[in-house]
Amino acid sequence: MAGSEVLDRARAIVGPSHVLSEPADTAPFLADWRGRYRGEALGVVRPADAAQVAALVRLCAETGTPLIPQGGNTGVVGGAIPDASGRSLVLCLSRLNRIRAVDPIGDSLTVEAGCTLAAVQAAAEEAGRLFPMSLGSEGSCQIGGTIATNAGGTAVLRYGPMRDLVLGLEVVLPDGTLLNGLRALRKDNTGYALKHLFIGAEGTLGIVTAATLKLFPRPRSTATAFLALPSLEAALRVFARLRGALGDRVTTAEILSDSQLAAVLAHVPGTVRPLAAAMPWYLLAEVTDPMAGLDLAAALEDLLAEGLEDGSVADATVARSHAQAEALWKLRHSVSEANRKSGIVIGHDTAVPVARIPDFVARATAAVEALRPDARVVAVGHIGDGNIHLVVILPDSARTESQPLEATAHAVSAAVHRVAIDLDGTISAEHGIGQSVRDALAAYKGPAEMALMRGIKRLFDPQGIMNPGKVVLTGEP
Amino acid sequence: MAGSEVLDRARAIVGPSHVLSEPADTAPFLADWRGRYRGEALGVVRPADAAQVAALVRLCAETGTPLIPQGGNTGVVGGAIPDASGRSLVLCLSRLNRIRAVDPIGDSLTVEAGCTLAAVQAAAEEAGRLFPMSLGSEGSCQIGGTIATNAGGTAVLRYGPMRDLVLGLEVVLPDGTLLNGLRALRKDNTGYALKHLFIGAEGTLGIVTAATLKLFPRPRSTATAFLALPSLEAALRVFARLRGALGDRVTTAEILSDSQLAAVLAHVPGTVRPLAAAMPWYLLAEVTDPMAGLDLAAALEDLLAEGLEDGSVADATVARSHAQAEALWKLRHSVSEANRKSGIVIGHDTAVPVARIPDFVARATAAVEALRPDARVVAVGHIGDGNIHLVVILPDSARTESQPLEATAHAVSAAVHRVAIDLDGTISAEHGIGQSVRDALAAYKGPAEMALMRGIKRLFDPQGIMNPGKVVLTGEP
Repeated sequence: MAGSEVLDRARAIVGPSHVLSEPADTAPFLADWRGRYRGEALGVVRPADAAQVAALVRLCAETGTPLIPQGGNTGVVGGAIPDASGRSLVLCLSRLNRIRAVDPIGDSLTVEAGCTLAAVQAAAEEAGRLFPMSLGSEGSCQIGGTIATNAGGTAVLRYGPMRDLVLGLEVVLPDGTLLNGLRALRKDNTGYALKHLFIGAEGTLGIVTAATLKLFPRPRSTATAFLALPSLEAALRVFARLRGALGDRVTTAEILSDSQLAAVLAHVPGTVRPLAAAMPWYLLAEVTDPMAGLDLAAALEDLLAEGLEDGSVADATVARSHAQAEALWKLRHSVSEANRKSGIVIGHDTAVPVARIPDFVARATAAVEALRPDARVVAVGHIGDGNIHLVVILPDSARTESQPLEATAHAVSAAVHRVAIDLDGTISAEHGIGQSVRDALAAYKGPAEMALMRGIKRLFDPQGIMNPGKVVLTGEP
Repeated sequence: MAGSEVLDRARAIVGPSHVLSEPADTAPFLADWRGRYRGEALGVVRPADAAQVAALVRLCAETGTPLIPQGGNTGVVGGAIPDASGRSLVLCLSRLNRIRAVDPIGDSLTVEAGCTLAAVQAAAEEAGRLFPMSLGSEGSCQIGGTIATNAGGTAVLRYGPMRDLVLGLEVVLPDGTLLNGLRALRKDNTGYALKHLFIGAEGTLGIVTAATLKLFPRPRSTATAFLALPSLEAALRVFARLRGALGDRVTTAEILSDSQLAAVLAHVPGTVRPLAAAMPWYLLAEVTDPMAGLDLAAALEDLLAEGLEDGSVADATVARSHAQAEALWKLRHSVSEANRKSGIVIGHDTAVPVARIPDFVARATAAVEALRPDARVVAVGHIGDGNIHLVVILPDSARTESQPLEATAHAVSAAVHRVAIDLDGTISAEHGIGQSVRDALAAYKGPAEMALMRGIKRLFDPQGIMNPGKVVLTGEP
């Protein structure tokens, strides 16, 4: 079928005004926000509800048209960007933005895929509850995308990644069947965990149209601290002390290298060095409790005093006001902006077992510096998750070298990934696979797991129309 | 191949003394502890390690021999019992009982499938950590079985079911490939969640031989209370108040009907009524915190005082000693024994959204009483999980009716399951499917989910040799 006929039939499903095909209209959907990935498409379709999504999927199944689901387009692995063929439809979920139900007794809410994360947080707050996922992009990323990528963020330590927050899913399968699995159940042992296959599958097995999510009590006591640390080994000791004493009250433990803090202070207006002396590492720790009136700041200060005494902490400050806490958080939230302004960014999303973080950072940094003595390596991440983003910053001159920049980036990333794998780590902790690490996956997974993944893809999507080219290719046996 | 040849080849793999084929030796492996399920087998094989498991699976794949993995044989759904054909091998995992590694920094440990849950708890404790799963059968159930069934227990409210406690798995696939997925990673977004397919699959997709599990800080403050409540609605209000104020400190919230408590007091020696007056419902609540020296009993008393004032709590006692807490726990732990002694037990494992618990109990009880006016209905369960076990107790005379007992039990269970499904609930919350609810599953899942489950089973186990007849049948398209 001609592309124009596919578009005509899509218009009949969603209404003419919700099919975009003019280049000026479709452009924002065909590239990611960092400008790394760019594709072409027949058009962009904007269904109003799950029934329209199902009708569009049936149209695509019938016509063999690849379908690329897209939420807020805030991803960093190219998972929501079509290929260059121009044969695909981009499925924009933004209009599925209803909060369908809030159940404060069962501590759950049901929302459509196109709700922004911020809208979900707000709906939870309105019900006196917390939806705990917290991401830099929360104002624009959509809940369907956070499910499709099993998003992480700064509260994973306490609440887990998206996978742990999903009770049930409504999914349109690749044949257009609408699967209603919006079960608000805390326990359900009825066979194979289909829900978990869709979570993190980046739309390659079906399209999430709605989800029932867990809610939590709101924190009513909070304390935020910023620590300067002599080493990553010391950071692990401090983290273990905090977690051992305070348990899951420790909701955030974000580590920044001195080079990362320096980049933030140099490039982001309004940021202020929180501690006098520079040290190799810093930790932003937040502690929360649903009980009101607890003096968590005092509890933190006691624990930090022990650290100052035994040398694991070099210096520390505990925020004494909301404004002070915000200023500390601003340092963390500014890292992407700072790194972009520092040069050419080659980012990574590795995780290793927590005890191996020091080893990973030392070996990966050495590997990068051996390849590129002109690189600046900064590190920022989630120490309790073992998830350290090693960010390699090259001078702008790297663009004009004889070796194309893409090849340089590939070599750098291969070196970082090799170290992570050697230390029993992963090459994608929270960003997903998309296009960016798809071809690196086999080295991590091994042939048996890859074969099962390809088998699952073929089972769910025998025509290969659901976000093809992402996560796993089915061409191989 | 003749059965005797399969046994000979199994002897060559594990050694002659680890293949049991005499009826006296195999009998304990061919029936469940409650005597509900009984099967036949060629023999019982007891491998020493994962390599021997892989060799046995290859033998079974080559000879088309069904393989039935069995842990502590403490399950209640017949999931580890072979069928009557006598063609199967029972694979006993007990000798895979090594604690392979403990990582107190990464808060994880790696254990083999045949370790008892109690042994895993002890290994965690030795490292100063908590492995939180807690089950009545913890002294004999094995960790592989708890993974295969995604076991629940009394601490799910706080720590989640087994699924939430597994970081990585080592699995022997149905073709004998040993898949090493013992990743101690807190985050890993590298494609489809194969791990979650094996968890809860009851050995139908592969055999778990080892697992890397999450550890937690040990609780250092604890308080235990027993409450008498006028209604389930009141119980929900009290639970919401506790959770809202204390958050995840509320690790246990077990509900018992008055009829359940009465059965315990009547049939289990050494149990004592903890509160003077009888009320329709009781709640056993435990609150824990990793911080030492907290007066959680006082915090509980304050909250319970509010409940006494507004009428949601009729009476309450907070344990003032470890012995008092143990006595309260004994009431909960004695329910199975008490019910067995009360008559013919027809148990259920439903869960519904928490807010619907009162409706579920009222409607399911009425449905049972309409069918069997002579039934005594008792209820015990996990209120925060929505998981209420409705236990129907028939007089012994039901054995001698013209309708076979099995048909009576089937009719009773169908009525209870119907109510659960009508209330958006599940028919198996924590026990699994096994043989017992396999045929009831389609009414709950619907055709699309059933088709995907059958497809996954065929993809992983095309020969159908892995624990056949459990969870899902592949005969249908």
